[in-house]
Amino acid sequence: MERDWKELIARMTLEEKAGMCSGLDFWHLKGVERLGIPSIMITDGPHGLRKQREGADHLGLLDSVPATCFPSAAGLASSWDQDLVRRVGVALGEECQAEQVAVLLGPGANIKRSPLCGRNFEYFSEDPYLSSEMAAGHIRGVQSQGVGTSLKHFAVNNQEHRRMTTNAVVDERTLREIYLASFEGAVKKAQPWTVMCSYNQVNGTFASENVKLLTDILKDEWGHEGFVVSDWGAVNRRDDALAAGLELEMPASNGVGERRIVEAVASGKLSEEALDRAVERLLRIIFMAVDQQKENAAYDQAAHHALAREVASESMVLLKNDGPLLPLSASSSVAVIGAFAQSPRYQGGGSSHIVPTMLDNPVEEMKKLAGHPSHISYAQGYRLDSDALDEELIAEAQRAASAAQAAVVFAGLPDRYESEAYDRSHLNLPENQIRLIEAVAQVQSNIVVVLLNGAPVVMPWIDKVKAVLEGYLGGQAAGGAIADLIYGVANPSGKLAETFPVKLSDNPSYLNFPGEGDRVEYREGIFVGYRYYDKKQIQPLFPFGYGLSYTSFEYGELTLGSREMKDTETLDVAVAVRNTGSRPGKEIVQLYVRDVESTVIRPDKELKAFAKIELQPGEQGTVSFTLDKRAFAYYNVELGDWHVESGQFMILIGTSSQNIVLEEQLTVHSTVTLKKTYTLNSTVGDLMQDPASSQKIGALLQQFGQASGLMSMAQDESHSEMLMAMMRYMPLRSLLAFGGGAVGEEQLERLLADING
Amino acid sequence: MERDWKELIARMTLEEKAGMCSGLDFWHLKGVERLGIPSIMITDGPHGLRKQREGADHLGLLDSVPATCFPSAAGLASSWDQDLVRRVGVALGEECQAEQVAVLLGPGANIKRSPLCGRNFEYFSEDPYLSSEMAAGHIRGVQSQGVGTSLKHFAVNNQEHRRMTTNAVVDERTLREIYLASFEGAVKKAQPWTVMCSYNQVNGTFASENVKLLTDILKDEWGHEGFVVSDWGAVNRRDDALAAGLELEMPASNGVGERRIVEAVASGKLSEEALDRAVERLLRIIFMAVDQQKENAAYDQAAHHALAREVASESMVLLKNDGPLLPLSASSSVAVIGAFAQSPRYQGGGSSHIVPTMLDNPVEEMKKLAGHPSHISYAQGYRLDSDALDEELIAEAQRAASAAQAAVVFAGLPDRYESEAYDRSHLNLPENQIRLIEAVAQVQSNIVVVLLNGAPVVMPWIDKVKAVLEGYLGGQAAGGAIADLIYGVANPSGKLAETFPVKLSDNPSYLNFPGEGDRVEYREGIFVGYRYYDKKQIQPLFPFGYGLSYTSFEYGELTLGSREMKDTETLDVAVAVRNTGSRPGKEIVQLYVRDVESTVIRPDKELKAFAKIELQPGEQGTVSFTLDKRAFAYYNVELGDWHVESGQFMILIGTSSQNIVLEEQLTVHSTVTLKKTYTLNSTVGDLMQDPASSQKIGALLQQFGQASGLMSMAQDESHSEMLMAMMRYMPLRSLLAFGGGAVGEEQLERLLADING
Repeated sequence: MERDWKELIARMTLEEKAGMCSGLDFWHLKGVERLGIPSIMITDGPHGLRKQREGADHLGLLDSVPATCFPSAAGLASSWDQDLVRRVGVALGEECQAEQVAVLLGPGANIKRSPLCGRNFEYFSEDPYLSSEMAAGHIRGVQSQGVGTSLKHFAVNNQEHRRMTTNAVVDERTLREIYLASFEGAVKKAQPWTVMCSYNQVNGTFASENVKLLTDILKDEWGHEGFVVSDWGAVNRRDDALAAGLELEMPASNGVGERRIVEAVASGKLSEEALDRAVERLLRIIFMAVDQQKENAAYDQAAHHALAREVASESMVLLKNDGPLLPLSASSSVAVIGAFAQSPRYQGGGSSHIVPTMLDNPVEEMKKLAGHPSHISYAQGYRLDSDALDEELIAEAQRAASAAQAAVVFAGLPDRYESEAYDRSHLNLPENQIRLIEAVAQVQSNIVVVLLNGAPVVMPWIDKVKAVLEGYLGGQAAGGAIADLIYGVANPSGKLAETFPVKLSDNPSYLNFPGEGDRVEYREGIFVGYRYYDKKQIQPLFPFGYGLSYTSFEYGELTLGSREMKDTETLDVAVAVRNTGSRPGKEIVQLYVRDVESTVIRPDKELKAFAKIELQPGEQGTVSFTLDKRAFAYYNVELGDWHVESGQFMILIGTSSQNIVLEEQLTVHSTVTLKKTYTLNSTVGDLMQDPASSQKIGALLQQFGQASGLMSMAQDESHSEMLMAMMRYMPLRSLLAFGGGAVGEEQLERLLADING
Repeated sequence: MERDWKELIARMTLEEKAGMCSGLDFWHLKGVERLGIPSIMITDGPHGLRKQREGADHLGLLDSVPATCFPSAAGLASSWDQDLVRRVGVALGEECQAEQVAVLLGPGANIKRSPLCGRNFEYFSEDPYLSSEMAAGHIRGVQSQGVGTSLKHFAVNNQEHRRMTTNAVVDERTLREIYLASFEGAVKKAQPWTVMCSYNQVNGTFASENVKLLTDILKDEWGHEGFVVSDWGAVNRRDDALAAGLELEMPASNGVGERRIVEAVASGKLSEEALDRAVERLLRIIFMAVDQQKENAAYDQAAHHALAREVASESMVLLKNDGPLLPLSASSSVAVIGAFAQSPRYQGGGSSHIVPTMLDNPVEEMKKLAGHPSHISYAQGYRLDSDALDEELIAEAQRAASAAQAAVVFAGLPDRYESEAYDRSHLNLPENQIRLIEAVAQVQSNIVVVLLNGAPVVMPWIDKVKAVLEGYLGGQAAGGAIADLIYGVANPSGKLAETFPVKLSDNPSYLNFPGEGDRVEYREGIFVGYRYYDKKQIQPLFPFGYGLSYTSFEYGELTLGSREMKDTETLDVAVAVRNTGSRPGKEIVQLYVRDVESTVIRPDKELKAFAKIELQPGEQGTVSFTLDKRAFAYYNVELGDWHVESGQFMILIGTSSQNIVLEEQLTVHSTVTLKKTYTLNSTVGDLMQDPASSQKIGALLQQFGQASGLMSMAQDESHSEMLMAMMRYMPLRSLLAFGGGAVGEEQLERLLADING
């Protein structure tokens, strides 16, 4: 229904308009009854609906209605399947409709700068392209149901440590290529109804008051049409935030926010037009929600649980499988060990923590798939509420393991290890779990470790086990999915969306995480995740993009649509893949681009496309990609735009970021010429290299070479390399000092005028 | 002789004064004949006098009078012996007096940020303390002879790539703790007559025009009394440079510099008083030189050559000695292999390249020490002017090696590999040398590799040889020194003043070296050299401070004068060391300090003292150190001063930076209180932790805890950790939003006024 927004706003008082710009309470927007503007509800997500019961608490944390708990983003991203994530979004949207929720907060598109970040389980990846694609899938799914999303936390909120006050200091290129790019694609491709600003400061300004982020980039450059909502409590000065482009403060500010806005308009600090524009953005979304609200909506809990199981099995990553030990035969006797096997960790702590509609028990699910329930024994192994060793539990686990043909050890991070609100300080599993794995390894050589955790752990014990399945936080059906994968009912197809380092200090942010006081410098710049491990040649435990399958794939031809293109054109790429194993399976084909030579510092390679393809045994398929300028570009800070440096690029096809199986080269020509202005401090080498000036400077250099004696000296081979280097790096002005008076100031000025003119 | 400088300057014309501020020609200052101001000569060093013959060339590069060539700084620093470096300085001073040279340019105190820097051979270390101590020794020695020095290149000139134009972007703390500290100690302790400014820009301003560097820090903070001279051609705008504190432009500027200064004074842009101050600094040094000039000075070439041999043997570092293979017995038959054994590389290229008075031939020197000359055979092995493999030379080397009991392979970097004016692009030896070592290893298991190079190389072949002697660029007597060490006439006592990495990409500057265009960002910050390898837990090939001996040492007691001190007090430290081997030898005892816990990012440990002690077999000695505030301090940018954070510190005694053999803890109390001002964005945690505010905020938090429901929620253990973290990181202003209206704005303002007041 099309409405006359201007007319509606004109009927509102200043106080009503200012009022709309902050919440009614913890979870509702204000309405204006006399004008028929309803109050809508927005609640936490993102991987399940967290609708708090009325009057629960003022921090909005506890006691929510049951909802389906899907795998959290760390797992979802490991599926590398945008459509799967979209289907999760559809289900979430249905549940929101059933609960009269207008906007579901999420997805989170923050980059995993450090594996320590307590909230990494809610984020997708260390790579901005993969992250933004996954976020776009999520948004499309939810919004297809007439329910809004809130892409969060915008921006550069990559740690929980001092998150409400810390200042993230990031250079512009890194901001654009890494931290903002992760949001950019999702905003441009999927138009989330709302974007949530983060708590922290970005380069000295709170995200909530950051004109550059909220208005210049988000609204003006990217064309975001919805509104910006503050993270809960992120507003510092309400008037500055509104001026910067933050339409909605949450939660209710007890009148403070409204008063600040009214005063600012009254004093002329804030124009009423700016307030009107904010209110219009709010109204458009409010009515978009209202117009699409479904009467008597309901959803099928069992169907959603089944979807959660399917999604979970696609989200888990098989990291190791010597033998192969997996899949286990239904006829094997298996000792299932570890408290997580009975009380799995399946979601993270904090605002995304929900009450599931049902919850799989891994041991029970395994019993269902084992040939007979008696094939499965269980031993607790460790306590979840403590890291302390319990020798009795370990002895019991050893007895169970030694009596079986294989042991499946459930390990991972207890709730207290990772959560919203604080970061981890190390990457270890609890000591009692490490000791358990080692103890079981003493009596059983067929060990599968199933990990339940939201972010990477180090694995000093890895040589002692044959198989490792990274289960992430797999949602309420994780237990069933794990059973499916262990017994080969499902074939693992996830690949890591983040690097697993050998040790914490290998991480690129290590020297500068979480910063000093309220300042954290992103000194590693664009070298985040595999971009760093690649370039620094630091071997990770498991690289980005890595994951095993029960079948095998063979790559065929890599075809480029062209060997030469302008940056205004697109490039078609096709890759043939065949399933050479004996089981149906899915392969994630990864396309990376390398700039062969560049005048700017660039990563060895960057992910620019990916596809997941399902193939039957023996079947061959082809995946296709279309690359545009952005696939070859870096962000040029001076230009204030993405720029391709003309030259050679490699198209790399990998089964992971480290295993490149196919590569082809092409030439890309830039259609943009960067303007250069030469000065007395431009080097002779630069002037010689530029076709626009090399001719013009030739005669002068001849003159200088003779006067300085350089020419005769350069004939002595033992010095020629040094002399040529000296010449190359010399600024024009040096011709004055070293030319023995042969070159004059005016002559240089004339030359520069000629070259620049 | 005390002179009335003001009176003398008053008699000078503006043109004469301006004229004094740039050179007469390439190597002379201007004098003013009518006033009896002489023209003095300054020439290149630093490890030998490079006095160019009259009218040689306009770039000042070729053809100089013979002078003793001592080991270059990379080697000198490996001696860790300030007195030895002082003795080299004395010899250099004597040679200057004999040649009527008033100022010898050097030493170089730039930090080895990257092993690729083409001029690293002229610099001492990656550690600022070691570097400044060595530089001070050099300065004291030269200046004791009435000859000046020029501490260079001030500052942040850590690469040759685009050195005349590049802008080194360094944060203030890194500047102070690493790059300036290397100069600071030398200036304060040894007062070099002159300091040479570097070519590059530092944080956007040419070093030659950098008021902060040349005036605020060098003159005002550090109290430098002499003058600043430009690196040859480093002046951009002469008037700006003079205003910034650069007294002397070199070389002659063909009238341009003088004119700029006269115009600037005439226009009022520059005050005549500023010019007068510059001229006074120049005159004081000119007459200091003239007053100490020695008539008919001469020096003993043979004695200086003998000193060069002694110094070279102390400057070489034994990196590996399996067996031990070294020292060789005089009765062994030895194949000496490699062109460097006949034509050793003993000095670097560029402005420090001199004509030696004599030159040792390593093969001949070895023959002198071998039982009989026939014990020594020689094979060339490779060509020096090419990297190409010569199979014939390799076959010949194999024949020689297989016929002998041991092979000594001379390898290293040819002149064309490293020099002033350009940087290396990799750390490899030439391909033909690598292949030679591998080929010799096929036929001979007793291989010693002697390396002649100015900076680290990688050693993929190291497992194939039993011994490696790092000879650096050992000066004209390197050949004799190598023979002394190989046959045990001298016992190796050098230790590395820089880290040898396994691979180039391990270096901390790798991602940002040599920068983009004219901008190089020092993103690794204070983590230079071992500070980085330590913290990142990257195992180097050989760590900083490492070196072997033919004898062994045992460390006894570590004694601290106190377990508790104020930062205004000093700490005496004593370490007992015993020679437990069978040869006389010298041990370098290294003292590192670790701040056990800190709110700022700090290295794991930093070198704060060292001593070299000579011990006879069985002898025990004690080395003593006195540490002051600086040993515990970091540079506090807000304070603009060095600051000690009260707390625990470890005193670590190491035989290298990685082999810590003794440690003791003490408490240091700061006498400086950092002023804190709290705002609405101060976190609850910070306020709780500060004794000045924790009491005052208590009641408010109680009130908030009840109103928000936090208190009752925190009783649920599964959330308590998260809730406590949320609380800790909450800014005061959040109490408004989350307090359900229980906490008011005015209440917070009153609280802040109370705490801050």
